[in-house]
Amino acid sequence: MSIISKVSPLAPKNFPFMLPVSGVRFSTANAGIKSGDGDDLTLIMLDPDTEIAGLFTSSLMRSAPVIDCQSKIGIEVHGKGAAIIINSGNANAFTGRQGENAVREIVGSLSTIADLPVQRIFSSSTGVIGELLEYEKIIAVLRSLVDSVEVSKIGDAAKAIMTTDTFPKGSSIKFDFKGTEITISGIAKGSGMIAPNMGTMLVYIFTDALIDKNDLQSVVADLNEETFNCITVDSDTSTSDTLLVGATGKSGIEVNKNDLEFRDGLRKVMLDLAHQVVCDGEGASKFVEVCVSGAADQQEAKVHAMSIANSPLVKTAIAGEDPNWGRIVMAIGKSGASADRDKLSIRLGDILVAEDGWICPSYKESDGAEYMKQQHLAVNVDLGIGTGQAKVWTCDLTHSYIEINADYRS
Amino acid sequence: MSIISKVSPLAPKNFPFMLPVSGVRFSTANAGIKSGDGDDLTLIMLDPDTEIAGLFTSSLMRSAPVIDCQSKIGIEVHGKGAAIIINSGNANAFTGRQGENAVREIVGSLSTIADLPVQRIFSSSTGVIGELLEYEKIIAVLRSLVDSVEVSKIGDAAKAIMTTDTFPKGSSIKFDFKGTEITISGIAKGSGMIAPNMGTMLVYIFTDALIDKNDLQSVVADLNEETFNCITVDSDTSTSDTLLVGATGKSGIEVNKNDLEFRDGLRKVMLDLAHQVVCDGEGASKFVEVCVSGAADQQEAKVHAMSIANSPLVKTAIAGEDPNWGRIVMAIGKSGASADRDKLSIRLGDILVAEDGWICPSYKESDGAEYMKQQHLAVNVDLGIGTGQAKVWTCDLTHSYIEINADYRS
Repeated sequence: MSIISKVSPLAPKNFPFMLPVSGVRFSTANAGIKSGDGDDLTLIMLDPDTEIAGLFTSSLMRSAPVIDCQSKIGIEVHGKGAAIIINSGNANAFTGRQGENAVREIVGSLSTIADLPVQRIFSSSTGVIGELLEYEKIIAVLRSLVDSVEVSKIGDAAKAIMTTDTFPKGSSIKFDFKGTEITISGIAKGSGMIAPNMGTMLVYIFTDALIDKNDLQSVVADLNEETFNCITVDSDTSTSDTLLVGATGKSGIEVNKNDLEFRDGLRKVMLDLAHQVVCDGEGASKFVEVCVSGAADQQEAKVHAMSIANSPLVKTAIAGEDPNWGRIVMAIGKSGASADRDKLSIRLGDILVAEDGWICPSYKESDGAEYMKQQHLAVNVDLGIGTGQAKVWTCDLTHSYIEINADYRS
Repeated sequence: MSIISKVSPLAPKNFPFMLPVSGVRFSTANAGIKSGDGDDLTLIMLDPDTEIAGLFTSSLMRSAPVIDCQSKIGIEVHGKGAAIIINSGNANAFTGRQGENAVREIVGSLSTIADLPVQRIFSSSTGVIGELLEYEKIIAVLRSLVDSVEVSKIGDAAKAIMTTDTFPKGSSIKFDFKGTEITISGIAKGSGMIAPNMGTMLVYIFTDALIDKNDLQSVVADLNEETFNCITVDSDTSTSDTLLVGATGKSGIEVNKNDLEFRDGLRKVMLDLAHQVVCDGEGASKFVEVCVSGAADQQEAKVHAMSIANSPLVKTAIAGEDPNWGRIVMAIGKSGASADRDKLSIRLGDILVAEDGWICPSYKESDGAEYMKQQHLAVNVDLGIGTGQAKVWTCDLTHSYIEINADYRS
């Protein structure tokens, strides 16, 4: 289908240059799970003593690999390496006991081949829901995957984890910390769809910083709240969302959860990847930042921001380049969080559109219409009742969304 | 725009025969508020001692007429008639103090002309958000409206309250009660859209039953929970939703809130109108009943049902006639209410699709695909963990939804 293979207009010009992270190696293969020619299996090998943090979907219909990964986060295993094995093309979700068995078989086999304890082997699957994962196909290529891992193959991994993503997603930075350098590099997939499935967000980030396991989990959980948990494409939550962060410690530089440089560095990579997922949202033609301030508190600010970002009427207006601020008013009104009609103001970018309970006398519809033609848009709402702030990111709702999700299977 | 004027494929063949309700008279006029030739102003006159119940949008951005109506429900006024004045084409929402002034002017003028206390005059507006209502145009035709009310003009009223609705909505029944007859007739509008606005649901129902004001309010509130509050087109809540029920008492038959015949009769009319609103959902091509049973409790059953009914992925799959039960699993998983993967079952109509945490061995994809071709669909989920049940209704998410809400204004 041409609609599926077309690269998102919001895609970055190039895949970024990825800085190698010492202690992390990648390999990919075609195991025949995903249709088409590309690789669909990724192995990531992590050196001994790498600390691993993980966050997972809140769905009660979590996939078998998610359930398995969750049970392993936080387990203390010293002096051992770790591995992450990821297939695309099949989500291994809602596959009952047989799905759990598939995970056990893959992890068990990799444990033997790579000489790693099963508690240090994490797996992810993304693709079709409700179809049995042919794990034998994966096991058949594990040996060659283990034998071919290289530090430089992170770009291949970013491609192999894609399903209907239209571009691979990577982000990489290096920064000074107490006189030496720390590197953080990550990849993600997300927001693509293939029938009869739901897309999945998978994110893998690595750093050579030396950090305590609990500190790493704490920093990742904090930053997740202001990055991945602040994006929405269509308000539907995957059965398979997985974020794994590995810290190899190879830089020899010790950091803790309160080190601002480390937090800022990790935040940058997480936010960059989160924005790339939005930019690859199904059918997206506009990238939209929704910024809410002046709310009763931070939580209420986020409720309002997500109500705007998830509203089909707001999102279709944006697709139509229509400065339809009445729908923003509607989304604030229905959110369930506090608001006062006569105290709020709405800006499209810097253009003041509404305040004092009504359209702003200086606002010209032609200014709003001109602004809406941009590819990157900002909706700024000040509720005027408190100090709560939140920022979330979304895309528009276009014909291509319907095409991708309704049309091409019939 | 051809897309707007096309009648919904889910529309009933004919506007139903409407039984007159003694003590209720209607008139309509073209006041020049809504573009086009049709009438846009409706007056409903109610005989003295009519009891009026009302329910309104929960939006914090409620329109000026909604705020005014809410303040009048429950006020005791004996021996006086009542009136409802409704304009289409302008919602008088987010119009600040001037919006409230417009309501005061209209109500004040009608009070003088019709010799009614202002507390007995209710108004509704539906259409554009954020534009000042030209109330002088309405006041100019009030006299002729008052002079021309007739019992038979309820069909004209159903048409005059439409905005981008594709068909007028009415429902009417008569039933025996203790040897005599009670009549209930109602009209509704909803789910149409015009730029730059949000559609509105307005419902007006009348009966000749004799019922205490508090009893009427109580019955209407109860029944609303299982009728209008169980429908969703796109999860966006209007600033103007209004449901008014007038009981004239002209039948002389006294009923109370516990009379099952009366409750059943009113439920039928409310449910019929609610379903008609779904059938006129923007771009709708399928009418979908989502029935959840076996939930922890009734509230959780409704949370699951609404999560399925509001999911863009479920709704686009239905538009594509794709029996994509994996997306139903996803919607249950994300709802926030309790569920157990291994205990739930999913049926498309009577076809068992999934149970025991996986696809049902007897299920054939071709059966599911054949079922999805129908215009009226049922998604039946049994969670298998309790006795909570809920039923909600929605429509699919189609290209026409995007056309109506994004395309035609640019």
